[in-house]
Amino acid sequence: MTDSPLPQTAWRETPFDDDKLKEECGIFGVNGVSTAANFVALGLHALQHRGQEAGGIVVHDPEHGFNSARRFGYVRDNFTSQAVMDTLPGPIAIGHVRYSTAGSKGATAIRDVQPFFGEFAMGGAAIAHNGNITNAEELRRELIERGSIFQSSSDSECIIHLMARSLQKNIPERMKDALRRVEGAFSVVAMTRTKLIGVRDALGVRPLVLGRIGDGYALASETCALDIIGAEFVREIEPGEMVVISSTGEVTSHRPFEQKPSRFCIFEHVYFSRPDSILGGRSVYETRENIGRELAKEAPVEADLVCPVPDSGTPAAIGFSLQSGIPYAMGIIRNQYMGRTFIEPSEQVRNLGVRLKLNVNRALIRGKRVILVDDSVVRGTTSRKIKEMILDAGAAEVHFRIASPPTAWPCFYGVDTPQREKLLAATMSEEEMRTHLGVDSLKFISLDGLYRAVGEANGRDAKAPQYCDACFSGEYPVAPRDKLAQGFQLKTAAE
Amino acid sequence: MTDSPLPQTAWRETPFDDDKLKEECGIFGVNGVSTAANFVALGLHALQHRGQEAGGIVVHDPEHGFNSARRFGYVRDNFTSQAVMDTLPGPIAIGHVRYSTAGSKGATAIRDVQPFFGEFAMGGAAIAHNGNITNAEELRRELIERGSIFQSSSDSECIIHLMARSLQKNIPERMKDALRRVEGAFSVVAMTRTKLIGVRDALGVRPLVLGRIGDGYALASETCALDIIGAEFVREIEPGEMVVISSTGEVTSHRPFEQKPSRFCIFEHVYFSRPDSILGGRSVYETRENIGRELAKEAPVEADLVCPVPDSGTPAAIGFSLQSGIPYAMGIIRNQYMGRTFIEPSEQVRNLGVRLKLNVNRALIRGKRVILVDDSVVRGTTSRKIKEMILDAGAAEVHFRIASPPTAWPCFYGVDTPQREKLLAATMSEEEMRTHLGVDSLKFISLDGLYRAVGEANGRDAKAPQYCDACFSGEYPVAPRDKLAQGFQLKTAAE
Amino acid sequence: MTDSPLPQTAWRETPFDDDKLKEECGIFGVNGVSTAANFVALGLHALQHRGQEAGGIVVHDPEHGFNSARRFGYVRDNFTSQAVMDTLPGPIAIGHVRYSTAGSKGATAIRDVQPFFGEFAMGGAAIAHNGNITNAEELRRELIERGSIFQSSSDSECIIHLMARSLQKNIPERMKDALRRVEGAFSVVAMTRTKLIGVRDALGVRPLVLGRIGDGYALASETCALDIIGAEFVREIEPGEMVVISSTGEVTSHRPFEQKPSRFCIFEHVYFSRPDSILGGRSVYETRENIGRELAKEAPVEADLVCPVPDSGTPAAIGFSLQSGIPYAMGIIRNQYMGRTFIEPSEQVRNLGVRLKLNVNRALIRGKRVILVDDSVVRGTTSRKIKEMILDAGAAEVHFRIASPPTAWPCFYGVDTPQREKLLAATMSEEEMRTHLGVDSLKFISLDGLYRAVGEANGRDAKAPQYCDACFSGEYPVAPRDKLAQGFQLKTAAE
Amino acid sequence: MTDSPLPQTAWRETPFDDDKLKEECGIFGVNGVSTAANFVALGLHALQHRGQEAGGIVVHDPEHGFNSARRFGYVRDNFTSQAVMDTLPGPIAIGHVRYSTAGSKGATAIRDVQPFFGEFAMGGAAIAHNGNITNAEELRRELIERGSIFQSSSDSECIIHLMARSLQKNIPERMKDALRRVEGAFSVVAMTRTKLIGVRDALGVRPLVLGRIGDGYALASETCALDIIGAEFVREIEPGEMVVISSTGEVTSHRPFEQKPSRFCIFEHVYFSRPDSILGGRSVYETRENIGRELAKEAPVEADLVCPVPDSGTPAAIGFSLQSGIPYAMGIIRNQYMGRTFIEPSEQVRNLGVRLKLNVNRALIRGKRVILVDDSVVRGTTSRKIKEMILDAGAAEVHFRIASPPTAWPCFYGVDTPQREKLLAATMSEEEMRTHLGVDSLKFISLDGLYRAVGEANGRDAKAPQYCDACFSGEYPVAPRDKLAQGFQLKTAAE
Repeated sequence: MTDSPLPQTAWRETPFDDDKLKEECGIFGVNGVSTAANFVALGLHALQHRGQEAGGIVVHDPEHGFNSARRFGYVRDNFTSQAVMDTLPGPIAIGHVRYSTAGSKGATAIRDVQPFFGEFAMGGAAIAHNGNITNAEELRRELIERGSIFQSSSDSECIIHLMARSLQKNIPERMKDALRRVEGAFSVVAMTRTKLIGVRDALGVRPLVLGRIGDGYALASETCALDIIGAEFVREIEPGEMVVISSTGEVTSHRPFEQKPSRFCIFEHVYFSRPDSILGGRSVYETRENIGRELAKEAPVEADLVCPVPDSGTPAAIGFSLQSGIPYAMGIIRNQYMGRTFIEPSEQVRNLGVRLKLNVNRALIRGKRVILVDDSVVRGTTSRKIKEMILDAGAAEVHFRIASPPTAWPCFYGVDTPQREKLLAATMSEEEMRTHLGVDSLKFISLDGLYRAVGEANGRDAKAPQYCDACFSGEYPVAPRDKLAQGFQLKTAAE
Repeated sequence: MTDSPLPQTAWRETPFDDDKLKEECGIFGVNGVSTAANFVALGLHALQHRGQEAGGIVVHDPEHGFNSARRFGYVRDNFTSQAVMDTLPGPIAIGHVRYSTAGSKGATAIRDVQPFFGEFAMGGAAIAHNGNITNAEELRRELIERGSIFQSSSDSECIIHLMARSLQKNIPERMKDALRRVEGAFSVVAMTRTKLIGVRDALGVRPLVLGRIGDGYALASETCALDIIGAEFVREIEPGEMVVISSTGEVTSHRPFEQKPSRFCIFEHVYFSRPDSILGGRSVYETRENIGRELAKEAPVEADLVCPVPDSGTPAAIGFSLQSGIPYAMGIIRNQYMGRTFIEPSEQVRNLGVRLKLNVNRALIRGKRVILVDDSVVRGTTSRKIKEMILDAGAAEVHFRIASPPTAWPCFYGVDTPQREKLLAATMSEEEMRTHLGVDSLKFISLDGLYRAVGEANGRDAKAPQYCDACFSGEYPVAPRDKLAQGFQLKTAAE
Repeated sequence: MTDSPLPQTAWRETPFDDDKLKEECGIFGVNGVSTAANFVALGLHALQHRGQEAGGIVVHDPEHGFNSARRFGYVRDNFTSQAVMDTLPGPIAIGHVRYSTAGSKGATAIRDVQPFFGEFAMGGAAIAHNGNITNAEELRRELIERGSIFQSSSDSECIIHLMARSLQKNIPERMKDALRRVEGAFSVVAMTRTKLIGVRDALGVRPLVLGRIGDGYALASETCALDIIGAEFVREIEPGEMVVISSTGEVTSHRPFEQKPSRFCIFEHVYFSRPDSILGGRSVYETRENIGRELAKEAPVEADLVCPVPDSGTPAAIGFSLQSGIPYAMGIIRNQYMGRTFIEPSEQVRNLGVRLKLNVNRALIRGKRVILVDDSVVRGTTSRKIKEMILDAGAAEVHFRIASPPTAWPCFYGVDTPQREKLLAATMSEEEMRTHLGVDSLKFISLDGLYRAVGEANGRDAKAPQYCDACFSGEYPVAPRDKLAQGFQLKTAAE
Repeated sequence: MTDSPLPQTAWRETPFDDDKLKEECGIFGVNGVSTAANFVALGLHALQHRGQEAGGIVVHDPEHGFNSARRFGYVRDNFTSQAVMDTLPGPIAIGHVRYSTAGSKGATAIRDVQPFFGEFAMGGAAIAHNGNITNAEELRRELIERGSIFQSSSDSECIIHLMARSLQKNIPERMKDALRRVEGAFSVVAMTRTKLIGVRDALGVRPLVLGRIGDGYALASETCALDIIGAEFVREIEPGEMVVISSTGEVTSHRPFEQKPSRFCIFEHVYFSRPDSILGGRSVYETRENIGRELAKEAPVEADLVCPVPDSGTPAAIGFSLQSGIPYAMGIIRNQYMGRTFIEPSEQVRNLGVRLKLNVNRALIRGKRVILVDDSVVRGTTSRKIKEMILDAGAAEVHFRIASPPTAWPCFYGVDTPQREKLLAATMSEEEMRTHLGVDSLKFISLDGLYRAVGEANGRDAKAPQYCDACFSGEYPVAPRDKLAQGFQLKTAAE
């Protein structure tokens, strides 16, 4: 495989808001089109919200073989020049955007940027992974002892080494071998010289959808990435399913894993997925509007305005307004040129960090009782600053309404969460949080309310929860084996 | 003066949406603070919507004299590194962001990036200009004949040469001399070694506000730039006023020009200014919500959803929804990572350009009658594509409602408009436009309705219009002398 | 291991003169000093003539573990910034400069830039290799079949995979295991967390020397790299020897291979090594002066001036002048700013390529009989152009004297040579070459004369040649196994 | 005029050897060819030794008007890409390379990079200047008072402002007007839309030559720049002459200044000019060889080897060897990859700075009596380090022979010299310098010897010196007016 030798045009950016949970990856693949890499670039651009640190594309072409380009920074900055895209010819391609990997502390090396590639006796294969392998440390130790050389600090590299050592004669079978050894949450797109492969783990924690584009097929983390290329949404890949898509458009479905009830990540509905994507047959936007309506029912309050914390609180705020009849207004305006690293003037500017991206609509807010709707509270740092700005602008009252339950547990399935002790809800009650944030009222939607909003009319089935909600409930559907080995404490009966 | 020798970190970007009128400049200045350039960088970041092509900062410090840095690209990419900001010491600074200048065809040179600087016998001065000088060609010819050497193609450079040739003994007086020779629209911030100066032309076409920060003062195009640095809004600079602000905080007011009735640009209310800025004592956001309400009264229609064309149509759409009772919804989602230059895949993607930044919320829109609210229609190119995307998604009906009257005339006062024949409304009636766009209905707010929404209860005074509305009415408050010389035809009695 | 995340500051350059044989690598290592990477950067700078395409450094430090930086371009452009060198802490380091690798066609990927690193069960190791593995293809196939994943197209990567699969318990023993499987020519420096290792193949084809610096030791391809850091030259590593140098300065010597008579590359004396390096106890400069003297004896000619083809012909030209008594003069001047890629003006400039780096001293040359001394003739392309320039300048006669025998065979031991049919001497007799170049006379030193000049008083021992001279003689001391498999024809009895 | 908007590809470099006098500029112009800028790029590359900090090119084309590109760094790094050169169309062009300007302290701004351009009533003109205007401060003050705005800190900008204010009706006449006001040393190339102009000051201090290329003409600082483009050397422009070259190849000669005896800079023969250039009908190389012969006659010494200090001492060393019969040898080898900014390892490397570019040929030097020939001694800092390296290598004796008289006075005519007190010869006798440098002997050529070597058989005419030799003699042919105003002391009768 040949890496694009052209230099990258933009450098990595720090995350936009460091007080959010971060989805760690978006994946995309396409087979059976003329310039597959151009489609992948577009698909990854549409999935950029799932990972902003780096991106990579691998292609194959009978004449030029496998080629790849992996860069730090945004897709729009790296995969838009003719010079780069000309190094990526062929009708089949996969790509990946990432936020950061388990394992790498501090700066990521370009070696950690997916897709990963391996040359096997029967030809090469590349894979891109969204999720997290919870027994990666154990696998890595074993593989090194047997003579594998790891090139990255990524947990995902285990998969390619397991495939290299499989005795199966073709790549899809080697992939099954490898993924059966792997624990945790994963959606994977992979490619051989002619085949595009998509897999979801048995619980289906992370999303993966199938689309049709002309005579070819695409796989994507979300439907919004099908929309951008004009592909038709066919269906979701099912939990525990592997699909193999040939260059002539045959799609075969396999079931390599033991069958289990699905446990899709409920936070995809709350925050990770884009509002214009479709999950479970419904617009994510509508689900979030529903969450706002549910929240208005559960936690009503008298006020003059309902304002979203932009942009993620917007659909829930609209729902809250529609349910409550309190007018919706943009009380906080977001600077669309997003700056994060300005040098603080020597006369210190209060809340400079938050001012760089948000400004209160002072003339609108003055003297008003304001309901602020946000999607979640993680450490509470941004929430406090927003409250201060709102009060500085002369609001009469500030009421926070949160479109998810308290986030009290870290995610080990492909989401970047702070350590448990940094989560506000891990150490404080709702009332303590209210006092800490200094607002007139603070209410989170209940877990049952959230389940109702996503379409479970009877709420959560406590015996067999329909979703993975470990970040709220502390109930982990897959034991986080590496983390337990490092001393992580599961929820006790008392909690 | 010494230019920062450090290389720029980002290159110019093409405009985000080429079917909008573009404000050409934002200006900012501060005096009497410790690290003035850091404040200016923040102020310019808040004004980035007024000009994305390039930015510049000039500072003065008794020890290091005048220093400057001028760069293509966003403020956040150029004026955030310690290395650059360290080259800009001192308690007084002015800055400028620009979209493009009258006179430059094609790519702008860095020489055209303001502020401009001149060394006079009594010391140096720098100026930054928002607006357009309508007799610049004439002045330029005269100055060259007298031996001045122009370094840029900018109309604004005339001001500094006129100042250099003034016989006045101090810089504020030289500036008055110069500006009395200049015709057109201008708001100017300027600086000497110790004084910050702000001026608006006699009609006050472009905005300029005064703020207080600690013991110092700031001048800015809009109040949102005061907010970001935590400055208190004092007042607007009045039409025809010059203020001179000393390093010790004395503010003196001068009236260098003949008194005239004010003619502020009404399009600042419609689109140019940020919604969180205050104009005429009221939030721009509220004015736009008012425009939406007014539009709902003037042009009601039965429908299921009111959706904004993001982001500029949002406040008017909210107003339309509040007035009409039709639910507000985000039917079109904007990609916040804004890509514009992806390479089109060889299987052509319909409306690729617009898909890079906008996506229809398909599951929400399907089968619905949708009212789309946009701020303006210029060439109509984007409007057509949005309509197609909405219909592709299965909308039952599409109704366009436009928060400004038809834009039928170019602006010569500091706004980038296409040539008259490119403006849709210059050659088509409302019904012709409706057919051209292919929508079920299309309605623009009336000029009187717009005046009412901005607070003129009796609408427009046809004898003495309270605003500059030349882009709608063709009535130019200052004769565009250079353009007339080039053959531009004013509105005839018949039109 | 963590790669330096900082972007590289310069891009790869094309080779300075494409009509020379190119040494493919320079290697350097140091142990037991405070900032080992800074020493390695200096050492690699001194070895830059051995490889200009890319360079890499690996370090280890108990606190930060292994770190590396690998970049295209010159050492001076990549390893001189504090920002980069700060990412390379520790008392032990190795480095590599390269021209290009066997196996990579076209542009090299950064993955092909050495040193290579592997994490083994007992800890990590890095290696840097000068030479060429003649059975690399065979080894690679075998390793892939057993589940190794190759990350580069470099032959040298085999070594690290062979080490990973060795069952030995420590790294030096694993290295012996690995190198016993490898055929061809190699000098290797390697490092573990605490040990610096140097090895030469059994024939000692490529150079490697040991130096002492304070309480530490350095290994380098040539002594000039010891000089730059002020290290004392201790001795050459012997053919077939492995030295292991601990952090406390113990040096142990091992003999992992079967003992054989040495076959050092004679072309190192002719061209590859720097004139200020010491080989076999004598200055390379003096050896080359000797070659010039020998050439003057073998091939005298009447003339007015002896001129070198700069810079590699200089010492032999001085020797020729001293022996012949004909005055030495700089008839050709080299532009020290070396440009290679200027755009040809539309009026074509004759011999533009060579004019960019060389100019004839016209006023000196006019009317003179000139002897031009060059180190070698490969394809003859540059020689022809130089001859034309000399004649254009009005020289009366041009006599070429070449300080090496005709280069008629490719090198397979770590030198970049054209395919055999591109070598002028592979297809032409001396007289045919003279006619082809269009000069008054052309003489190469004899193979025996060259052996005498390097110190073999009796010339070449045809039964057991004291050096590897395959490029002249076609007698390959190690069978080029991969090349033979690809169809390369060895010299026949008839040739 | 439009500046090239493309970013520059390399950043400024620090000077190669900071212990040399630096020529400040090289100039080049061409008219009547198809792609003039490509010729200028080549010409400037050949003149790079006259200025390495920055370069610029201005072109004109009837279709595109005036265009320019000005960049920091080498010509080969900035003016070789198709993208940049495509912005520079047209049949007429001038260019400039510079080291640094009088007036700029510290970093140069891109505004200070020539050519300078002015738009006059009768059209634009650009000029490039080699030399120094000794009354620039006075002129600048006067021009500012009259309303001119300076854009740079360069003395050369005065010329363009004086031209702008001239009442003459065409540009060549305006240029005469302007240059008659200017004092000091100057060679200038200038261009209008169709005419190429070359001028030398009345004394002809700086060089300028005329060449013929096809039907067009070129002007260059040195003949080596004619050679690179294949132009035929026609003649030197005479002191006090202005030539005007039309687009159709007419050359007219003017004499705008009062006639005076010529005073060409003698240091051009010693060091500034390239050895392959022709000055006064003779190769500079031969003149330098002559200087070496003269030095061998004036200051003979018994020794084993004559070694040049590379590269500038080489021709004189060859001459010294030929005259003395002592063998010439390369005792010091220069690293052709020139590094200057490596980070010093924590174990300090003695003389690291000089080691980065020079290394002693240890095996050759050991035990020998060595004559080192250098072109000049300025501060003596490099000479001391070289001596130390030679002694470290075991030389038995070190004798310095300098190919110019002691440099005791600064140059004010376009050469960068340290302040007088930093010049070793300004404060020490020859014997004191010998002791300071710590060598066995030190001899400079006499001023008369130097005159003989450059062709004045009777040596220097003390009453009417044939050259400008102010740096040796302190006799300034033009009073340095600005410097005198700043307190510079001319040589007193006593000195």
